[in-house]
Amino acid sequence: MSDRSLLVVVLAAGEGTRMKSRLPKVLHKVAGRTMLHHVLAATRAAGATRTAVVVGPGREDVAAEATRIVPDAQVFVQTERLGTAHAVLAARAALEQGADDVLVLYADTPLVRPETLARLRAPLAEGAAVAALGFEPEDPTGYGRLVTSGDELVAIREEKDATAAEKAVRFCNAGLMALSGKDALSILDRIGNANSKGEYYLTDAVEIARADGRAAVAAKADVDEVAGVNSRIQLAEAEAILQKRLRLAAMAEGATLIAPETVFFSADTVLGRDVIVEPNVVFGPGVTVGDDVVIHAFCHLEGAQLAPGVSIGPYARLRPGTRLDEGVRIGNFVETKAAHIESGAKVNHLSYVGDAHVGAGANLGAGTITCNYDGFSKYRTEIGAGAFIGVNSALVAPVTIGAGAYVGTGAVITSDVPEDALAIARSRQVVKEGWARDFRAARADATKK
Amino acid sequence: MSDRSLLVVVLAAGEGTRMKSRLPKVLHKVAGRTMLHHVLAATRAAGATRTAVVVGPGREDVAAEATRIVPDAQVFVQTERLGTAHAVLAARAALEQGADDVLVLYADTPLVRPETLARLRAPLAEGAAVAALGFEPEDPTGYGRLVTSGDELVAIREEKDATAAEKAVRFCNAGLMALSGKDALSILDRIGNANSKGEYYLTDAVEIARADGRAAVAAKADVDEVAGVNSRIQLAEAEAILQKRLRLAAMAEGATLIAPETVFFSADTVLGRDVIVEPNVVFGPGVTVGDDVVIHAFCHLEGAQLAPGVSIGPYARLRPGTRLDEGVRIGNFVETKAAHIESGAKVNHLSYVGDAHVGAGANLGAGTITCNYDGFSKYRTEIGAGAFIGVNSALVAPVTIGAGAYVGTGAVITSDVPEDALAIARSRQVVKEGWARDFRAARADATKK
Amino acid sequence: MSDRSLLVVVLAAGEGTRMKSRLPKVLHKVAGRTMLHHVLAATRAAGATRTAVVVGPGREDVAAEATRIVPDAQVFVQTERLGTAHAVLAARAALEQGADDVLVLYADTPLVRPETLARLRAPLAEGAAVAALGFEPEDPTGYGRLVTSGDELVAIREEKDATAAEKAVRFCNAGLMALSGKDALSILDRIGNANSKGEYYLTDAVEIARADGRAAVAAKADVDEVAGVNSRIQLAEAEAILQKRLRLAAMAEGATLIAPETVFFSADTVLGRDVIVEPNVVFGPGVTVGDDVVIHAFCHLEGAQLAPGVSIGPYARLRPGTRLDEGVRIGNFVETKAAHIESGAKVNHLSYVGDAHVGAGANLGAGTITCNYDGFSKYRTEIGAGAFIGVNSALVAPVTIGAGAYVGTGAVITSDVPEDALAIARSRQVVKEGWARDFRAARADATKK
Repeated sequence: MSDRSLLVVVLAAGEGTRMKSRLPKVLHKVAGRTMLHHVLAATRAAGATRTAVVVGPGREDVAAEATRIVPDAQVFVQTERLGTAHAVLAARAALEQGADDVLVLYADTPLVRPETLARLRAPLAEGAAVAALGFEPEDPTGYGRLVTSGDELVAIREEKDATAAEKAVRFCNAGLMALSGKDALSILDRIGNANSKGEYYLTDAVEIARADGRAAVAAKADVDEVAGVNSRIQLAEAEAILQKRLRLAAMAEGATLIAPETVFFSADTVLGRDVIVEPNVVFGPGVTVGDDVVIHAFCHLEGAQLAPGVSIGPYARLRPGTRLDEGVRIGNFVETKAAHIESGAKVNHLSYVGDAHVGAGANLGAGTITCNYDGFSKYRTEIGAGAFIGVNSALVAPVTIGAGAYVGTGAVITSDVPEDALAIARSRQVVKEGWARDFRAARADATKK
Repeated sequence: MSDRSLLVVVLAAGEGTRMKSRLPKVLHKVAGRTMLHHVLAATRAAGATRTAVVVGPGREDVAAEATRIVPDAQVFVQTERLGTAHAVLAARAALEQGADDVLVLYADTPLVRPETLARLRAPLAEGAAVAALGFEPEDPTGYGRLVTSGDELVAIREEKDATAAEKAVRFCNAGLMALSGKDALSILDRIGNANSKGEYYLTDAVEIARADGRAAVAAKADVDEVAGVNSRIQLAEAEAILQKRLRLAAMAEGATLIAPETVFFSADTVLGRDVIVEPNVVFGPGVTVGDDVVIHAFCHLEGAQLAPGVSIGPYARLRPGTRLDEGVRIGNFVETKAAHIESGAKVNHLSYVGDAHVGAGANLGAGTITCNYDGFSKYRTEIGAGAFIGVNSALVAPVTIGAGAYVGTGAVITSDVPEDALAIARSRQVVKEGWARDFRAARADATKK
Repeated sequence: MSDRSLLVVVLAAGEGTRMKSRLPKVLHKVAGRTMLHHVLAATRAAGATRTAVVVGPGREDVAAEATRIVPDAQVFVQTERLGTAHAVLAARAALEQGADDVLVLYADTPLVRPETLARLRAPLAEGAAVAALGFEPEDPTGYGRLVTSGDELVAIREEKDATAAEKAVRFCNAGLMALSGKDALSILDRIGNANSKGEYYLTDAVEIARADGRAAVAAKADVDEVAGVNSRIQLAEAEAILQKRLRLAAMAEGATLIAPETVFFSADTVLGRDVIVEPNVVFGPGVTVGDDVVIHAFCHLEGAQLAPGVSIGPYARLRPGTRLDEGVRIGNFVETKAAHIESGAKVNHLSYVGDAHVGAGANLGAGTITCNYDGFSKYRTEIGAGAFIGVNSALVAPVTIGAGAYVGTGAVITSDVPEDALAIARSRQVVKEGWARDFRAARADATKK
């Protein structure tokens, strides 16, 4: 990675009215992360040393997300909307602090790759003053064109100002730009607004740099990296592109996705080798899966760590704080939350294990429920190694089941159970002969009336 | 909408043998509605004032569906199958009653849009006698061609009768037709069967009208509106087209569908703004979702009303009669049916709430089950506001839990519980020290033998 | 089918390093079957009378799968990797035993159809010595070309050796080959390794046969039949192709798949007529579904037989050994395993029925669980016809509930219940007035401190 300092200016002030949302556009999520988070993560991976984020007035929520991801990010407010160059200059104070390179990005293009950003800024190290990012869409209509001559970028031409020859150019402006740090302010300050809309356009930087006798160049991105998100439909398209990337990467690394198009990852999902994922699995943020894990159909995971050899589902729902050690088996209709389950333990059916620690080799029968909440607070359940919890048991926390203990079917356990003991809490079975026959006769009579 | 009266004649007598089904073709469903229902709904939206449905002999089930959707629809039986014009004339009595406009449709083209029907009949108001609907398929081979001259429709030519020039026409006959009400019967009665199959073809109406010196015209539909459904594969294709329309509409209105291709709507689903729908959600008929609702993955909803701010799932199954007030939370592996759950109440895990009313702010623990059925009748459960139902409780209806009451873990509640009271029904926990150790030793011995 | 004897030689020694897997490539699964199983099943359907499988050194697992599918298959080990002809000659002993026809296949092309294999070997009966299988890919770059002259196959030319005219040929070598049994060994033994890699190529068989004055011919396969699987991505592609075939076949036979792209079959799934499958259903191996069955969304089935008129799901999980008789209804969050459930019985919610027999018309309430495991062994539960099992009941196996018996809500049943009897095991409900009010006050106080 370059050892040049890099200031990134992320423009996040767009209103996003086409989203029809109360949430600001750049806080909508793709693969479990806000769009702003994606852009900031890409700049970090591309070597950002300082970060400036330009937000709209009153957008404390956007500012908070920026500093959540990059704690030392500087946030600037763009009070008027007078064009892209004007937006960048909202971060004047950051630009004045200086940096070798300056990179301008938009918070609504969440799919740009770090490698592309690195390629965009590279020419600055060789003396270029401006580098613009281009792409080749199927249909260039409506886009500004990157007019080049050899390696040189001559101008970024809006379509309405383009000659026929320029319109034939298919290399279009993606909007992202790198500027030499020592020239950036000088160039930006000379951008004027003598155009039909009276706005200050960042694209003018190219011709100003060239008038100074400085080099301007272009780098190229894949079409799917630079798509801006302006509507829910485009949000879904961005999600689809990113999911495709994540699925291909998972398979390339040695996971089997039986039906990749039905598996949904978060940007931070980590899968080991020889993991098998059946159809219809959703990975929320914070999931790590070890080698040789089998994830059956219809599982939903968030904030969970699965050690090698674990098997879950179908219909397992792992919530944050779940940690499954080697060989653990979680079956159908089972929910875990803040639960550390040690190696070889089994929770096979219809259970809720929350705020709990389960020792190695324990077996929790169908319908086992940890009662972790009394309407006010949450309490913990401890289940020792090798314990056997009978079907339909309720473990009222705080409570400890000793290692090797048995809990009888249908028990409500309110006191600790010693190691190797049996705890039962059950009424004696009483049989009333013939009762059902009489009941049916009476009910049938009643129904007739 | 036009103030002209409109008689629609829906041809629903096709046998649909390629469906390989005991169910008549037009009763197969797309987006939760029969194909016949879709067509009738489109005609109603296009201003139908009277409806005639032509069915095959003995098809009381088709007739019943027609009158379920349009109670005053007239049903006619086509006893012989002698061509499309013959089928329309099965509704002679309806035609004789007169109408400004007559519209002929097929019950197996469920995707036609009301706007298209309105465009098709519009020329009748300006004096045209016949208007045919056309479309431009990728490959016109096999379709009748709409031969036009300027604005005029000259003829509908079957491919086998077409000249080379006519075969080059890509504008094809969709089959739907509008006729001037005062001319319809006269035209239909003059259609002959002097053709190779000896059938009466509705398409002949064009040339008869022109021979009368009356205008015939054509309107255009999108390809995906006029696809007839003749097989299960085409049924699935129609479903896919309609789902795509519904998904795009939901997103355009401000809902986030993370993976639109995995969300299945019914034709009548209503979503508010800033609704988030995770992957793999199925909406059956009759669902209304308020603003800011989150529907997690793997939910299944039918006949349910969700107020703003509700959160459900993953794995929530809402059955008909479910009504969730503001901020209600339904968690995983929970089924509701005929249940009104008031604001802020929570049913987070592994529960069945049926034939019930749950007051505001109540908390139903994991494994709570309303026992609404005794093998003969269904009974209701009332849970008061702020009540707290312990884990694994069974509430044997009819029963009332008072506001603010507590039900202890594992209780079977058969009598009403007063407000602010505690109800318990539980056996004392008994511990047998060392029992588990002895049991294991005995079982291990037994296994050896 | 031909009455000629057929020896198939399946080459299964590829290492599959691009799979990044500890499992040998040909044991990875497509539609619930290993790739090797698919190839062996296709050869069996094409009339194989003897089977030879060539495996890599130490691949007992591949050998075991081969003999699991074809018990009398001969397994040969290829100790060195010196080309395809060398691999076939590893099965020299099988070739020496003789056969009318010899067919050479690769275990990593699981999609080849039996009809294609039959078409490939057919020319041998008419005197051809060699028949090669070709296909026409979108882009032939990189493939060997089948150079033909009229009906004759002149040569299989590697791209690097091809003339410009030969490169223009789009008919490419799929690798599969049929050889006349009486010529096979003679031809194979004359294949040399005088090429840049020093390997023995099976493709040389064509020119050797022609030099003998014998006919060589080519047969054609669809592109999607001959795709070799070398990576997880290609494995997913093969799965997608096969799923598409299975879905189209199911619909053609009269099943409705509402969203075919979300239904996942195993190669051996059998569906009856008028079966309706909602979105998101996974069929594991061994499932047979009768007519008029409804499978709601989110079901997961393995090793289950469903008689006509059954309805399952949503969220039903049927495990191996499940047998549902006519009209049985399995509802949401229900798991069955090794369970025979007789006609008209219902298990509607949140239940586990394992190692059980349920009589006709029985009704198992929500939360019914068969306790079939004591930590050491599995035991059976018998539920008689017409029995009614109350909510949240645990049936501790081995146990029998008599026909027509009632089990009260929340019971733990440890002893047999006679016919028509009522069994209860429940504590008396006790109410403590005002307790909840006091508890809340105390907890609120505690929280303040």
